[in-house]
This record gives sequence, C-alpha cells and structure tokens, in this order.
Amino acid sequence: MTHQDSQFMMRAIELARTSVETSSGGPFGCVIVKDGEIIGEGNNRVTSTSDPTAHAEIIAIRDACARLGSFQLDGCIIYTSCEPCPMCLSAIYWARPEAVFYAGTREDAAAAGFDDQYIYDEIALENELRRMRMQTLLRGEARNVFKLWVDKEDKTRY
Amino acid sequence: MTHQDSQFMMRAIELARTSVETSSGGPFGCVIVKDGEIIGEGNNRVTSTSDPTAHAEIIAIRDACARLGSFQLDGCIIYTSCEPCPMCLSAIYWARPEAVFYAGTREDAAAAGFDDQYIYDEIALENELRRMRMQTLLRGEARNVFKLWVDKEDKTRY
Repeated sequence: MTHQDSQFMMRAIELARTSVETSSGGPFGCVIVKDGEIIGEGNNRVTSTSDPTAHAEIIAIRDACARLGSFQLDGCIIYTSCEPCPMCLSAIYWARPEAVFYAGTREDAAAAGFDDQYIYDEIALENELRRMRMQTLLRGEARNVFKLWVDKEDKTRY
Repeated sequence: MTHQDSQFMMRAIELARTSVETSSGGPFGCVIVKDGEIIGEGNNRVTSTSDPTAHAEIIAIRDACARLGSFQLDGCIIYTSCEPCPMCLSAIYWARPEAVFYAGTREDAAAAGFDDQYIYDEIALENELRRMRMQTLLRGEARNVFKLWVDKEDKTRY
C-alpha cells in the first residue's frame, strides 16, 4: 500500500460522501486508475436515476471503458469505498482489472442496511433451492442460437 | 408454463439471435414482462459498445426500470435466453422481480465459450483466496461515511 493508493481511496470515499450529501444514492464511491491516473469514477445513483444496477463500481467501470474504448480494464486498479456486492464483483471479473482495493467491508455495509450477504448466500445455492423462483423453458431453442455463435467466423470474443 | 411464457421466451431468444447476426455482442437476449406486457428488452452489447456490463439482462432491467420510473421490478417476470451469469443474477436480486425463466443453462454457455462458472467459483471464495488480488485500505474512513448514511433522516432506502 503506497501513499498514492491512499489518495485514490480517499477520492473514492469522497465520492461516497457526496453521494449521501446530494441524495444521489447509497454511501458508495469508486475510482479506476491506469498508469497513475484516474480514468473512471462513479458514485451510487440507484434511487436518483431509478436504476438498480447504478452502483458506484458499475458506473466507474462503464466510465473507464468508454474512455479507453475497450471492454477490458487491462492494467487498471479499482479503488472502491466498500467491498463490492456480488453484482459489482462479477462485473469486475468480466472487466478483468489487475487488482481491487476496498475500504469498508460487507459487514460494515450490512450494519448500514445493505444486505449483500443475502445475495452472496442465494447465488451459491442450486437454482431450485433459491427463494426467488427460477425455471427453465425452451432450452433447445437457446442451444440453436449458441450454435450460431460457435459457427460465426468474424465474432469478437469477450 | 403457459403459452404466453413460451411466446415471451421466444422473443428473448429472437433478441439473442439478432445480437449474433448484427455483431452487437454475445448470443443473449432478455425481456421483462409486467401484467402480460413487455416493458423492457435487451440483447448483449459488450463488444459493440465497449461495456463489459452490457449483458442482456442488465440492459433489460435498466430499460424496464426507466419505463416504470422505479428501481424495483415489483410483479415483473424476467425471460432470459440463458441462465444469468453471477453479475446479472445479482442485479436481478437487487431489482426484486417475481420470477425468472431461462432457456439455455450455464453449461450451454460454457460450451459456447462463456465461463460464468469461473466467476461463480471465485465469488464463493474468501477474498484472500481469489485469483484476483483484493486488499483492504482505510476502512475507518469508509465507516465514517456509513455513519453519515445511517444518521441521514431523509434517505431513500433500496
């Protein structure tokens, strides 16, 4: 952990504070850094934009990727004011940055009313054991489209 | 499973097919239904929009929520052409719909080159055991912002 790491994290925490003070959304902020410079930022905007996916990390990833013109965060470091929820953690895996620093923990988030643990627990279960109803339908039709993808010669993998 | 369920799923699969045919992104489509009407749609646009979060379900959730002016999908049903990846499944939990129907399975996705299972496996691990480096930093500062949130009187919970 370097002085620079602390500075970037302080910026993420400042975004979290602003999020609360401006009633943008929950107390979460995130910055994404490449080569020592911030290339993406976000704060939670779930309630102010009617978007349940508008978590700080998702917004920062979209911001950084738009600026890079890439769907991958090669060589980037993510600084987020709290341990990512399962949605954001999975988004981070898809974006493939180099490392993630976080300040608050999921326990801190839970104490403030954000029940990430419920989602962590649910997604670890078999589909039929989850509290949310999930059911399969028309699998064969979907497999035809997967075949189309597999056979497509000029596709961009991700 | 009703005839209407099949029709909505066929629309989701049609969106997946279009996604491949137009080189928008991967072979995935999603529709969201409320009171028997489609209120949100999406197809994968990761590669064409340089956005690793642009999965079909995320786009459909954002579309439906914008139309409803709400960050919750109360009473909605999600039809997705494939079992959701952990990012999309978690987003679905945050959006709180009534049920989810899916066509292809995560095994079908894996066979076509989409390694959702890797992410499912990673997020189930303790942070320090993951292949991606994750590290805590300035937890105390983050807790101050959580306190600001807890003490805020006019907040909108989500």
